[in-house]
Amino acid sequence: MKKIEHIGIAVKNIDEAEQRFAKLLNTLSYKRETVESEGVVTSFFKTGESKIELLAPTRPDSPIQKYLDKKGEGMHHIAFEVDNIDQKMAELKQNGFVLINEQPKDGADNKRIAFIHPKSTGGILVEICQDKTK
Amino acid sequence: MKKIEHIGIAVKNIDEAEQRFAKLLNTLSYKRETVESEGVVTSFFKTGESKIELLAPTRPDSPIQKYLDKKGEGMHHIAFEVDNIDQKMAELKQNGFVLINEQPKDGADNKRIAFIHPKSTGGILVEICQDKTK
Repeated sequence: MKKIEHIGIAVKNIDEAEQRFAKLLNTLSYKRETVESEGVVTSFFKTGESKIELLAPTRPDSPIQKYLDKKGEGMHHIAFEVDNIDQKMAELKQNGFVLINEQPKDGADNKRIAFIHPKSTGGILVEICQDKTK
Repeated sequence: MKKIEHIGIAVKNIDEAEQRFAKLLNTLSYKRETVESEGVVTSFFKTGESKIELLAPTRPDSPIQKYLDKKGEGMHHIAFEVDNIDQKMAELKQNGFVLINEQPKDGADNKRIAFIHPKSTGGILVEICQDKTK
């Protein structure tokens, strides 16, 4: 893993959360992006070489809505940047990690992404992502 | 906030978690440190400019043990590095954030630290920390 690419934070209301995090981080959100396939609207903040990604549901059957119903607002996942997602996925499988996605899928922010199942990481949802523009 | 200094992860067993994260991050823990006052043993991994800090309880009345009993293993807090913790604490208070600590206290890894209450961050335990060696 090269670095923490971002921390995903589940929030109920994207407008309120954006204001709160702008005050906390002392910087404005630099991008909003909706990922229709996931039923999520995202908002990004820069902090050092990493990002904070707010995630709010856009519809009742969104995975983020289900997460909020079950666990409430809070840290949802941690994402690490990798150079070659296909190679990293094979390596993780060999090392006994269980992948949620068999193939990388398109995520927000020009990324190919895949998730590791929390049952193999000790309860943490881990994303690996590769920048499509690099 | 300058950068994500570390992500704190609550774990039950420090030895097992260290092995798991070494495989996940493809790097070994570079330091273990016990903070007796908090009843916690920590283990640190480098990832880019940030760290992963594993936290395991050293006694039954440890705050981390209480966290594990209530929420299970997972992401416990996010820590941001600041240049001047006293100034940042004053600024956060002025902006309506509720601090858990009135004064900075000593944390692991040569840091002065303070926590912001999750009720003012939308459910996330946020630490701010200043490196004592800088």
